[in-house]
Amino acid sequence: MPAQEIPVANPGALPSHLPDEVLQLAAKFEKKPLPQNVQTSLRSFQRAACYIAAAMIFLRDNVLLDRPLEPSHIKPRLLGHWGTCPGLVLIHSHLNLLLRNHSSSDLELLQVIGPGHGAPGALAALWLEGSLSRFYPDEYPVSANGLFNLVTRFSVPGGFPSHINAETPGAIHEGGELGYALAVAYGAVMDRPELVVACVVGDGEAETGPTATAWHANKYIDPRESGAVIPILHVNGFKISERTVFGCMDDKELLALFSGYGYQVAIVDHGDDWEAVNEELAATMEWALGEVREIQGRARRGEAVVKPRWPMVVLRTPKGWGGPKELDGKKIEGSFHSHQVPLPKAGGDETQLRVLGEWLGSYKIGELIQDGKPVQAILDNLPQDDGKKLGQLKATYDAHIPLKQVGWEEFAVEKGTEQSCMKVAGKLLDSMFQANPKTLRLFSPDELESNKLDAILDHTQRNFQWDEYSRNNGGRVIETLSEHDCQGFMQGYTLTGRTALFPSYESFLGIVHTMMVQYSKFIKIANEVPWRGELASINYIETSTWARQEHNGFSHQNPSFIGAVLNLKADMARVYLPPDANCFLSALHHCLLSKSHTNLLIGSKQPTPVYLSPADAGVHCAAGASIFPFASCSGEPDVVIVGLGVETTLETVHAAALLRRLCPSLHVRLVNVVDLMILPVESRHPHALSEERFEQLFTRDRPVLFNYHGYATELQGLLFGRGRMERFTVRGYKEEGSTTTPFDMMLVNGVSRFDVVRWAVEAFGGWGRGRRRDPDDIYEMPKFE
Amino acid sequence: MPAQEIPVANPGALPSHLPDEVLQLAAKFEKKPLPQNVQTSLRSFQRAACYIAAAMIFLRDNVLLDRPLEPSHIKPRLLGHWGTCPGLVLIHSHLNLLLRNHSSSDLELLQVIGPGHGAPGALAALWLEGSLSRFYPDEYPVSANGLFNLVTRFSVPGGFPSHINAETPGAIHEGGELGYALAVAYGAVMDRPELVVACVVGDGEAETGPTATAWHANKYIDPRESGAVIPILHVNGFKISERTVFGCMDDKELLALFSGYGYQVAIVDHGDDWEAVNEELAATMEWALGEVREIQGRARRGEAVVKPRWPMVVLRTPKGWGGPKELDGKKIEGSFHSHQVPLPKAGGDETQLRVLGEWLGSYKIGELIQDGKPVQAILDNLPQDDGKKLGQLKATYDAHIPLKQVGWEEFAVEKGTEQSCMKVAGKLLDSMFQANPKTLRLFSPDELESNKLDAILDHTQRNFQWDEYSRNNGGRVIETLSEHDCQGFMQGYTLTGRTALFPSYESFLGIVHTMMVQYSKFIKIANEVPWRGELASINYIETSTWARQEHNGFSHQNPSFIGAVLNLKADMARVYLPPDANCFLSALHHCLLSKSHTNLLIGSKQPTPVYLSPADAGVHCAAGASIFPFASCSGEPDVVIVGLGVETTLETVHAAALLRRLCPSLHVRLVNVVDLMILPVESRHPHALSEERFEQLFTRDRPVLFNYHGYATELQGLLFGRGRMERFTVRGYKEEGSTTTPFDMMLVNGVSRFDVVRWAVEAFGGWGRGRRRDPDDIYEMPKFE
Repeated sequence: MPAQEIPVANPGALPSHLPDEVLQLAAKFEKKPLPQNVQTSLRSFQRAACYIAAAMIFLRDNVLLDRPLEPSHIKPRLLGHWGTCPGLVLIHSHLNLLLRNHSSSDLELLQVIGPGHGAPGALAALWLEGSLSRFYPDEYPVSANGLFNLVTRFSVPGGFPSHINAETPGAIHEGGELGYALAVAYGAVMDRPELVVACVVGDGEAETGPTATAWHANKYIDPRESGAVIPILHVNGFKISERTVFGCMDDKELLALFSGYGYQVAIVDHGDDWEAVNEELAATMEWALGEVREIQGRARRGEAVVKPRWPMVVLRTPKGWGGPKELDGKKIEGSFHSHQVPLPKAGGDETQLRVLGEWLGSYKIGELIQDGKPVQAILDNLPQDDGKKLGQLKATYDAHIPLKQVGWEEFAVEKGTEQSCMKVAGKLLDSMFQANPKTLRLFSPDELESNKLDAILDHTQRNFQWDEYSRNNGGRVIETLSEHDCQGFMQGYTLTGRTALFPSYESFLGIVHTMMVQYSKFIKIANEVPWRGELASINYIETSTWARQEHNGFSHQNPSFIGAVLNLKADMARVYLPPDANCFLSALHHCLLSKSHTNLLIGSKQPTPVYLSPADAGVHCAAGASIFPFASCSGEPDVVIVGLGVETTLETVHAAALLRRLCPSLHVRLVNVVDLMILPVESRHPHALSEERFEQLFTRDRPVLFNYHGYATELQGLLFGRGRMERFTVRGYKEEGSTTTPFDMMLVNGVSRFDVVRWAVEAFGGWGRGRRRDPDDIYEMPKFE
Repeated sequence: MPAQEIPVANPGALPSHLPDEVLQLAAKFEKKPLPQNVQTSLRSFQRAACYIAAAMIFLRDNVLLDRPLEPSHIKPRLLGHWGTCPGLVLIHSHLNLLLRNHSSSDLELLQVIGPGHGAPGALAALWLEGSLSRFYPDEYPVSANGLFNLVTRFSVPGGFPSHINAETPGAIHEGGELGYALAVAYGAVMDRPELVVACVVGDGEAETGPTATAWHANKYIDPRESGAVIPILHVNGFKISERTVFGCMDDKELLALFSGYGYQVAIVDHGDDWEAVNEELAATMEWALGEVREIQGRARRGEAVVKPRWPMVVLRTPKGWGGPKELDGKKIEGSFHSHQVPLPKAGGDETQLRVLGEWLGSYKIGELIQDGKPVQAILDNLPQDDGKKLGQLKATYDAHIPLKQVGWEEFAVEKGTEQSCMKVAGKLLDSMFQANPKTLRLFSPDELESNKLDAILDHTQRNFQWDEYSRNNGGRVIETLSEHDCQGFMQGYTLTGRTALFPSYESFLGIVHTMMVQYSKFIKIANEVPWRGELASINYIETSTWARQEHNGFSHQNPSFIGAVLNLKADMARVYLPPDANCFLSALHHCLLSKSHTNLLIGSKQPTPVYLSPADAGVHCAAGASIFPFASCSGEPDVVIVGLGVETTLETVHAAALLRRLCPSLHVRLVNVVDLMILPVESRHPHALSEERFEQLFTRDRPVLFNYHGYATELQGLLFGRGRMERFTVRGYKEEGSTTTPFDMMLVNGVSRFDVVRWAVEAFGGWGRGRRRDPDDIYEMPKFE
């Protein structure tokens, strides 16, 4: 078999067999010629930004190329991704133009960039517009020194990293794992009618499932209450080393696909002709904004707007546009060879250095940056109002709107009754939504009723514009069977200042495991960035857990999302396992008002005993863990049994009652843990109990059984480092169970009351073992047998 | 705000504003009238299967309704999902018809069902066709007793669970987490030119990202070498409690969307007219198979086939079709109310019992099942050849083709050199692909070159049919930027008897965390099912790990997939961290030939020292962990340092050298762990070391530092239960690092050589501590300083 002929340059997509009629789907609009001065200012901005982006990848000196390039000017290690940069620069310049053209309107334009590896392009544009200077006046002023720092410190320890992150002004999206930009963009515009988000989706990213379904998010945008997203699919044809799916689709395939998603599609494609692309793209962005305004106008005037065809743009440009055309007979521009560093040996190889010099020289940067400042032609591209610049929009960095509080105690239930955590949570949330009709949303993968949170719908509704029953109703709830969309919406909504919840079947939250980790990485850095304001936490509610999946069986049993949260930085990670409805209310209330955490709440949708009064529940949750006195002896116990989770706690309560009856000489203490983070040693988490407090609860040396909701290994890891670990036994879900009874689920996983009793008696030394006890040391019989 | 008017019945999609020309995209074909006897046999099968499916949800007695229904006949707890069953039955009957019509051809038809909660429909059909009887002759024979068992034991402990799983004959897909059926179907047909997979995708499932991108998988099917998938999008309009996105799309939107994906689309929609639907669907399935044969014929005759428009079917039927029309004024049929149990109080409510009786009675089951056997009209729908029945196709249960072996030692490298694990792995795989040109595939999210596995492409190629450069070339490699597709392809390919690998950047494997768990759940049960044959393992290679993400930074650092594998059942979970290239080869070779495991191999793409000769590497990997003698004292050490992972091991090797020089009186032992599963106590994993062997390596009581590649918590959990845990210190990745140097990554995460040295000296009692030593007790200087 011969070696594969690697596609070296984008040959254009092979034509499909779709009928020509499909071409009629293309958006039709009038194109005004672009005035020469506008063309000049666009090109000046583009040339300067492309130059700077390239320089950031290569140069450690001579950053304005004011002398011939020498090997000593080249960074010792070349890092960064060039391929996508020219496209990002192109788009930035056209968003600037749009802002200028509509400076008298209330347009707020926010950019979400999917291909975050194009950080050099984004940062170069942000330096030119003065946004880096705004937030980093010492490091990156608009001056020769600022530019020197930007170029030489890029991808170097202490400088900007190679991907867009929370240090990038204007960014609300971590530029690492691909696929999520579009859902984040849609989340950002919800309940912000003034906002338009231009979302750049790379054609690599577009291959991901999360992006593939996020195109459907147009169906959840009410043009009256929310802003609009203008997606820009940037097709440069190649990924790291192969053609992209979208790069191989012809215009007919693209028009059909995105029309099917419900969009009006405009395709901008003029090969490598910058001026033609500028003219076409400028007209296209005007058309897109016009369509947005038209749809919004109709809706806001009270017209019924059914299935609006929101605009989207397909932008075809060569990968690494403007970079070296070829090297050693290999195409670079317009091929995957320009994905990262197109001249990887520029520091050592004479030819590559020469090509680099020619390439960088082609931008004539001396004409564009003078005395360390952009020339007037570049300034002419920038929005007049600093606050509207893409890097300085307040919505991107300091937009938090605190929720109006509602007391959770109002919804508390009576101790001794049986209640569903979710039923009461639904009532609290119903009230929270009424108090916060524009700043709180809930996203769920179609399981709100199934999860018994239906009280939420008492005063609000589902918001699904494609369905006549839920169109135009201001609903606070979006149910879509895409966990990725739910997560992306929550991220976009939270990062622009609001608060959101994501309830889900427990087993399916893991679908967004890495996405949550990416978000948390963004937040970790955001917390370290002084110019970013505080944000609400993101809030997960897990219910329909493995312990009550007797109806759905084995495939619906997976508590692994706990582990995902546990591995986050301690500053962020919060996992709560409230044992009953009142505790759930208290913990939920706490989470909704907390800041910058990743909160995971786990509860049951089935009615279960309420152990604590509202007052006691509040105290218990604040403590994180307490002794349940009604199920514990007074004084020092022989053994300690610990419940973590609704059903696993219930089993310990039953076990305590059984032990009381069957083995009265055995003194047992029952501890319930609400806050998982109290368990590790103090250095590991801010909530961790002091050793003294830990011993007050778990004794100094008695055998302790942790009857845990999650996987035993993770709890064992959390406990590691606490004294005398040999006395700890940890039981948890161990991947057993099918469609069976709830109690059988407890049995097959070894966490039933009988397992607890057996452990306790063995730890105690046997049923027959008696010892003298103080006759007063008799604890009350548990009520919940 | 008034409470939301819940959509109670599918009102049909609101019309979109797409132009009428789009309707021309619909597939055009001739429809022959369906002979009455065929219509009769279809309807007989459908009526019987729908009856049985409904009975499975409701009845514990009187299963053939041969006497009036009484409350005592109703199961005490009603479990199951009715809504999707009639559609699954309909499709099953038409696949039967297709098999009958083409019985003289070599057609092999395999069904993959996305909406696995429709198990009653699937199982009812499988009983009727005798496939349950084949595999469960004692429990579910084709007899009155077999039917009684099927009905009464469904969703009851010991009987079939509520979702399709590995116990279901003909199934190769776990019916739990939605979204993956389509990618699995595409994986199944690869390299099986005779196979046609009919893949049922529910309209709920179709909202997921993984399904949304799996439609693009048509672009990876070479019609010469592979079979074909006929996707059937089953649109019944509702999920658990809301309309579906696809149910709200009109014909024009659907035609445009799926034409854009590259398909020819046929829409079957005749409301609730069974006979009309049968006629239309029969013709449509014939058309679809004809199109498949036409495309394959052209390709297999050697014609260039460019962008073939593979057929797909959109099937609109009412949800819960044939069930109760309404109850208490609420629509049931054609609404979300029929999703699960449409008459939830049938056991206690007189009205509901009556409605149930009328509903079940409407099928006239007595006409269809006589003496416990299906009547001739039903038998007339079944394929004549048992081996071709959907439940008995060998490809679904016993198809494993062992790989031809290639010795890994041939690619081994010299001890003392520096080599990339991935470079050598690429060479072994190149050779494996040559030896196994039709039974081994590799799926990767576009990172093969970036991961330094490019030697794989020496004798094979990428296989991407939409790209003229990689079309029709028999390539073993698919690179697509969808981890979900990669995982689904691997599952389908493996479950139909072949072997696959999935290399990835470490940080992005977690994207398929829950998908891998679902697959492993299927395998766990498959291993318990006696009639299923053995299968190859699934094989992940993680590289470009956090330890060498100095160029991509923080967003590309996430070793959490280890934890996902650790939490699987011990029978399946395998995690290998080979410290060098030779060990990697040995471990990879072992994994490829292993059976039914979920193998995770973690290695480095950068050149790193080769510590062991090929022979020693083989012994080391088989042992799972050994002392590295070149970096250890002889005899009992003062401290033990343990490397787990390439870079973390290298740091321990350097630390040993530093300690030798700086603190010569401190005797250190260096242990390397390849197989993570040797660490837990014996009861927890088959690979776990005995306590005796554990102490031989890690001593009985000396301080031990585990310098670990992953998160410390999971390793601490693994070690939990080993004796004297207080002496263990565990360090690992702790979510620190940016675009920085590789060594800085070690420093900021506390796993650098200096951290190891500092720990060792502190554990030893300080630098100054001297003690007399035997002068011969001097270990060799490590070579790898």
